[in-house]
Amino acid sequence: MRAITIAEPGGPEQLVWTEVPDPVVAAGEVLIQVAATAVNRADILQRRGFYTPPPGASSYPGLECSGRVVEVGAGVSGFVPGDEVVALLTGGGYAELVAVPAGQVAPLPKGLSALAAGGLMETVCTVWSNVFMLAGLQAGQTLLVHGGSSGIGTTAIQLAHQLGARVIVTAGTAAKLRACRDLGADVGVNYRDEDFVERVAEVTDGQGVDVILDNMGAVYLDRNVQALAVDGRLVIIGLQGGVTGEVNLNTLLRKRAGISATTLRARPSEEKARIVAAARDAVWPLIEQGRFRVVVDRVLPVDRAAEAHRVVEDSGHVGKVVLDVATVRGSSS
Amino acid sequence: MRAITIAEPGGPEQLVWTEVPDPVVAAGEVLIQVAATAVNRADILQRRGFYTPPPGASSYPGLECSGRVVEVGAGVSGFVPGDEVVALLTGGGYAELVAVPAGQVAPLPKGLSALAAGGLMETVCTVWSNVFMLAGLQAGQTLLVHGGSSGIGTTAIQLAHQLGARVIVTAGTAAKLRACRDLGADVGVNYRDEDFVERVAEVTDGQGVDVILDNMGAVYLDRNVQALAVDGRLVIIGLQGGVTGEVNLNTLLRKRAGISATTLRARPSEEKARIVAAARDAVWPLIEQGRFRVVVDRVLPVDRAAEAHRVVEDSGHVGKVVLDVATVRGSSS
Repeated sequence: MRAITIAEPGGPEQLVWTEVPDPVVAAGEVLIQVAATAVNRADILQRRGFYTPPPGASSYPGLECSGRVVEVGAGVSGFVPGDEVVALLTGGGYAELVAVPAGQVAPLPKGLSALAAGGLMETVCTVWSNVFMLAGLQAGQTLLVHGGSSGIGTTAIQLAHQLGARVIVTAGTAAKLRACRDLGADVGVNYRDEDFVERVAEVTDGQGVDVILDNMGAVYLDRNVQALAVDGRLVIIGLQGGVTGEVNLNTLLRKRAGISATTLRARPSEEKARIVAAARDAVWPLIEQGRFRVVVDRVLPVDRAAEAHRVVEDSGHVGKVVLDVATVRGSSS
Repeated sequence: MRAITIAEPGGPEQLVWTEVPDPVVAAGEVLIQVAATAVNRADILQRRGFYTPPPGASSYPGLECSGRVVEVGAGVSGFVPGDEVVALLTGGGYAELVAVPAGQVAPLPKGLSALAAGGLMETVCTVWSNVFMLAGLQAGQTLLVHGGSSGIGTTAIQLAHQLGARVIVTAGTAAKLRACRDLGADVGVNYRDEDFVERVAEVTDGQGVDVILDNMGAVYLDRNVQALAVDGRLVIIGLQGGVTGEVNLNTLLRKRAGISATTLRARPSEEKARIVAAARDAVWPLIEQGRFRVVVDRVLPVDRAAEAHRVVEDSGHVGKVVLDVATVRGSSS
């Protein structure tokens, strides 16, 4: 098969579409012929040499895919060759074939194209596990999403809005904030000229927000805690604003609040399977009812992954940058 | 009645046992004739002017008591005058009488003297709500307790040990560490000459601990995160080592760990009632089976509360410093 390999740690030009050995399907795994995958920030960190894949993972980038089952390993029930599926991967999505534990695979939801579905799983599983399973966001509560126009952001806005929560987002341009509002965000804060702590206080009558989904880490740490409500929970899933942060623990204590930091990729497969099952139960019906969609910024053929990485690194996109594998496979075979 | 009043913010000498108006029992409340109460660090902060009682709370110190029901307010079922009880208070325990919402009251457990029971509720409810309800410590997991010989510490050690967890404690003297071991602690770390992060790594084969109960705040923040296991949870209930701390969020993220900071006193009464009910279900059987006791450092008459505060401020004690109210009432009436 062919896959995107990382020649050596560095810029987007290091991403090379090339011939590699086919993956071998192990017991409990499903082999998927990939239709589409999508770019996540972790892929960029991996390309730059800052994110070693967990032990046992594929060395090719790609944390999610859509596709068709071509083989099932020993002991797998629930999938047969030919099934159209989506999968949460630990790596290896930028490829023609990928092997993945069956628990991380779900049927392609009705009403979603295989192309858009290539960008479904990493964001849906990240948002579901963090905002709902870990932080326990409820209808009637308020969620603050930083980076509202990202793949994670556009997913979090839609899910929280559809499930009855109020959504406040931050983003860096008026166009991005408009896109967030179109997806259901109630309040948009342009972080370039507004202080989100002040705006949160203003629009929540000084109560603060119940849950924050944060991708900035250190630079927002103390201000996020200031923006929390009593019993509020800050969930950090990215460190784009630095690693070492200061926090006022008295503020945290007075609010009886909590800070968690998580990542999906390194979790054991059984945990991922629980998350996939929960996300499928909660989100598939919303997709089938037309209440949730994958926001696709653009689609590029997988052999132009370098260009796709540049788009995400420049933060000019809204939603997911999808990589089309089916077309590239079709055009060469 | 008489109560300990705080003449003005300051040292222990500000605690004055004096005549004050009787409390009035409201609907949903129980009026208790106090047998005993005990010293908590929050009382000392309040005496020094650093902890304003929450709105509606008594201005007298005292967050827990034992005693006898003398009156029940409208709508109270489950208690009648004459019942021997213990109560989690929002204040006012250093007094002959105290009124408290019925949900914060529980029957005196069999096998515990009314005197020792005066120091039961604040520590048991704090430990139960934080270590078990919030952080979810399980049998087979490891708990690290800072200040193992304190009232909170001696409670946490016994409960975690009896429920099948492994317990590591820090304390500042060999005698205190011995007392902790006698209560069930598996490993003692003298923080004066050992680094708890290194010792935790050593005794957990580098895995870290699942839950930390911390009273130090800022000064231990980053080291506590270093000592956590994957999925570990740090619960901060005191800030004796400062308010503003630095933390490496990448360590937190890699461990998928969480930091919470909480306080019991300011919670709504309904939440306290849920905690009291849960603690009663879990801990009363242990008390009745002789598997949990209130570790009493010493008992002083309530009119010598100043001396009791000095003992706790000097940190020379192990367990609770109990204030005997019954004797003082008896000797003057």
